[in-house]
Amino acid sequence: MAFTFQINNDLKFNHDEVLLRKSEENRPDIKIETITPTRMVDVVEDETKLNGISVVTSEKDVMSLKDYGLMRDDKLILDFGDHRVGTFQMDIDQTGSPMDAPLYMRLKFAEMPAELAAESADYDGWLSRSWIQEELIHIDELPVTLKLPRRYSFRYVEIKVIDTSPKWQAVFSNPVVMTETTADYSRLQPLELEDVELQKIYNVGVKTLADCMQDVFEDGPKRDRRLWLGDLRLQALANYATFDQTDLVKRCLYLFAGMTTEEGKISANVFVKPQNVPDDTFLFEYSLFFISTLYDLHQAHPDIELVKELYPIAKKQMDITLGMFDENGKLVPDEDYPVFVDWSNEFNKDTAGQAEVIYVLKQFIALAEQTGDMDIASYQNQLYKISNYAKDQLFDSEKRLFVTTGGEYNIASQVWMVLAHVMSDEENKAIMQSMIEKLFPVKNIATPYMYHHIVEALFEAGLKEEAVRLMKDYWGKMIALGADTYWEAFDPDHPDYSPYGSPIVNSYCHAWSCTPVYLIKKYLVDAQQ
Amino acid sequence: MAFTFQINNDLKFNHDEVLLRKSEENRPDIKIETITPTRMVDVVEDETKLNGISVVTSEKDVMSLKDYGLMRDDKLILDFGDHRVGTFQMDIDQTGSPMDAPLYMRLKFAEMPAELAAESADYDGWLSRSWIQEELIHIDELPVTLKLPRRYSFRYVEIKVIDTSPKWQAVFSNPVVMTETTADYSRLQPLELEDVELQKIYNVGVKTLADCMQDVFEDGPKRDRRLWLGDLRLQALANYATFDQTDLVKRCLYLFAGMTTEEGKISANVFVKPQNVPDDTFLFEYSLFFISTLYDLHQAHPDIELVKELYPIAKKQMDITLGMFDENGKLVPDEDYPVFVDWSNEFNKDTAGQAEVIYVLKQFIALAEQTGDMDIASYQNQLYKISNYAKDQLFDSEKRLFVTTGGEYNIASQVWMVLAHVMSDEENKAIMQSMIEKLFPVKNIATPYMYHHIVEALFEAGLKEEAVRLMKDYWGKMIALGADTYWEAFDPDHPDYSPYGSPIVNSYCHAWSCTPVYLIKKYLVDAQQ
Repeated sequence: MAFTFQINNDLKFNHDEVLLRKSEENRPDIKIETITPTRMVDVVEDETKLNGISVVTSEKDVMSLKDYGLMRDDKLILDFGDHRVGTFQMDIDQTGSPMDAPLYMRLKFAEMPAELAAESADYDGWLSRSWIQEELIHIDELPVTLKLPRRYSFRYVEIKVIDTSPKWQAVFSNPVVMTETTADYSRLQPLELEDVELQKIYNVGVKTLADCMQDVFEDGPKRDRRLWLGDLRLQALANYATFDQTDLVKRCLYLFAGMTTEEGKISANVFVKPQNVPDDTFLFEYSLFFISTLYDLHQAHPDIELVKELYPIAKKQMDITLGMFDENGKLVPDEDYPVFVDWSNEFNKDTAGQAEVIYVLKQFIALAEQTGDMDIASYQNQLYKISNYAKDQLFDSEKRLFVTTGGEYNIASQVWMVLAHVMSDEENKAIMQSMIEKLFPVKNIATPYMYHHIVEALFEAGLKEEAVRLMKDYWGKMIALGADTYWEAFDPDHPDYSPYGSPIVNSYCHAWSCTPVYLIKKYLVDAQQ
Repeated sequence: MAFTFQINNDLKFNHDEVLLRKSEENRPDIKIETITPTRMVDVVEDETKLNGISVVTSEKDVMSLKDYGLMRDDKLILDFGDHRVGTFQMDIDQTGSPMDAPLYMRLKFAEMPAELAAESADYDGWLSRSWIQEELIHIDELPVTLKLPRRYSFRYVEIKVIDTSPKWQAVFSNPVVMTETTADYSRLQPLELEDVELQKIYNVGVKTLADCMQDVFEDGPKRDRRLWLGDLRLQALANYATFDQTDLVKRCLYLFAGMTTEEGKISANVFVKPQNVPDDTFLFEYSLFFISTLYDLHQAHPDIELVKELYPIAKKQMDITLGMFDENGKLVPDEDYPVFVDWSNEFNKDTAGQAEVIYVLKQFIALAEQTGDMDIASYQNQLYKISNYAKDQLFDSEKRLFVTTGGEYNIASQVWMVLAHVMSDEENKAIMQSMIEKLFPVKNIATPYMYHHIVEALFEAGLKEEAVRLMKDYWGKMIALGADTYWEAFDPDHPDYSPYGSPIVNSYCHAWSCTPVYLIKKYLVDAQQ
């Protein structure tokens, strides 16, 4: 998530036990499946793949795994055939002379081949080393069934024997992963698309979403493994388009609703293990997206009781936000409650933030209508003022682009103003065409999260062809580079870029990237029906 | 143990279930005691201590352990006050913001401060790295009580946080070791000696023995943690002088007796976990020392039934050995059944080996008398022939020293010939005096095992003063260098010498070094009564 750590650990939080109990009641069962490896592989250089690394089928036969005795520094790599999230176990025995020393071994779990080529000792990034998925294990007595207690996110498992003794070899057999997900595949009616490329993009998106559907909608099953509100909004939309499991969305909404600050503000993310704890990180529009997520749920599965129940919390977020506007209707950003828009801090976010408020305020007013809120006129007035400020002060009619404080024209401003439908449909189309003309090709945007909003804005502006092209150029390129699931970060101009300095802490299955399943269904399939 | 690995894994072994059941019946209970750390320490340079490393009391207060929050690369060292063998546990929690990443930490267990200053990554010795006592542990959820499943041998525990995240710190509390031993201190009547130096030497010896008394007499609780026959012989002697627990000696004898090769040969060592397995390593006199250990037990606690039961196995060892002599009574060594005498292979072992047979054959004949073996005359004839060969062919009466094949005069030959009482008491004394004159000071002997035999030979030859001096110079020097228990290897001329290239795989509590408790009691206390 954001590059800057917020520390607000003196804050006190409400714990609404009624809402938190409802979050428990909506907890779906975790489904477990046992998967065996399909082959053994060797790491090879391949400049067409991520970081120039790929794998090829090994000469070693996975069906004969137990015939290979491993000594000091020997290793082998198991391929479980696709991205997996779950626990790992295998049997270990020894061959040769009696076991005259412990076995010391390393297990390395990799989502992508690039991780197999990186050594944890070389990692010196700012992000915690503790995310590196490797375990160093001593075993004093063999045979044993090694059952690792932790959950991993991976396709490949490298087994490396650090040492036995010169007298005996370690032997491995029956490796399995017990996959975990709350996604219910029996509910999924996969789309069948004529466009083979889009079909692949869709399929990988479904897998990405499913592997992030755990006890909550996790942002990434490898890292950070927690519920972020901005990510939840996109996951929920992707979910309605696929598995359509409302219980998990409700669980997550109740979690955020049940743990607000004393002021009433919702955290950007929450933890649920070993107990429910809200993080002390706050992002401006992530709090607001509580409203969006509630709105989207009600659109997908109308539930007026739920809307009424959570409306006061939604309203609180909007009220906090509206307090951040000046008398002219201009957002005055607060660096302690930062506008996110995207990871990068290299562009001005004022106009995009203003647009996000308009986007959400419209949804909020729709909910206010449903609940019969007597204050609705006030919100409508605010919407009018804020929208007018955007149209009058932030739109450069000559360039047909929105401008930010400091005179910057950036993609995010155009995208969010279009998504917020501040201007007419014709004007939106013109803005997007102007953006394509003046600001494309996209540069220095490294997240599927921002790409999602660009593509959606193109669709919303009626530029379907351009939207599909960008989707194929971005998500299709991840697949071409070897993705089994979509990544947390990807800049097509710098495919090897890691925000953390090493692929071993990158998350290669990250929920905010799964949205092609939603975009394809909404704008390409449903729109044609 | 020996530097050369023997691999004979095609051998088949007998498993005598009757004898192995008796080994189970004599298994003593493991006594468990909970120990807390006495202080925190810092590593300092100190040229008077082993490897130039010592510890001093830290400014941090162990009573306030839970007040110290540790982040990336922070560490602290707990001192448990004395050498401990057992399992470790502690409570771990966190402070600061919510736990937004796993905790990754390293625990390092050290018998000596020197180990704290060595990094496992730098180790590249031939001995298995798997013996290095450190664990790398990921913890996903805090608080937790971390209970490590393995047993460690240590005084110091270094806790190093490899990473948390910039937002929170790890907090440790309630560290304890649950010590394990089968030594029954209620049976121990410690000697009270006037000589303060000998008192210290005795006390450290008792601790060394006790920490090696586990499910079997282990050679070292850190490494190799198994039952070696040559070490058992010395441990049993030390045991009669201290805890005097015959059950553990019987258990070990039954283990060796119950698992011989199809030929009837006893392995140099056996493993007992997860099941009883004899090693495929064979040492000439280690097999023979089965006889010595049985003889010594019968001397300490006469048990004619036990002698009769195990006599056939004892006899087999002697018969195999006697088959290795030529018609003149000269031992013809076999490199596949090597004479050990000491670790070093830099000296000729023929004469010492010949002497060891004489030493054991005398004990065997005593047992043969007890059991009424009809073959006794044959053994007496063999003893006569072998002894005569030694006296006639191997003794240089001019130098008053025994010589080896190749004309070498070494300490081991003299020592074992004296221990075997091949010559008269007067001649033995002259030989030892000649050894002191011509071969002392001791050079290039690095094991307490060999030093034990030198000291004992000096005592046997009546050179009590010289024996005590050597004992103080050797075992006393280990104490001066910081020993809480005696070491597997120690060359006073090269105190930092490790046979493995690093202190982190050295065993600093090794049973074959505990024999001062036996030597002091037998030759200094009992001899005066």
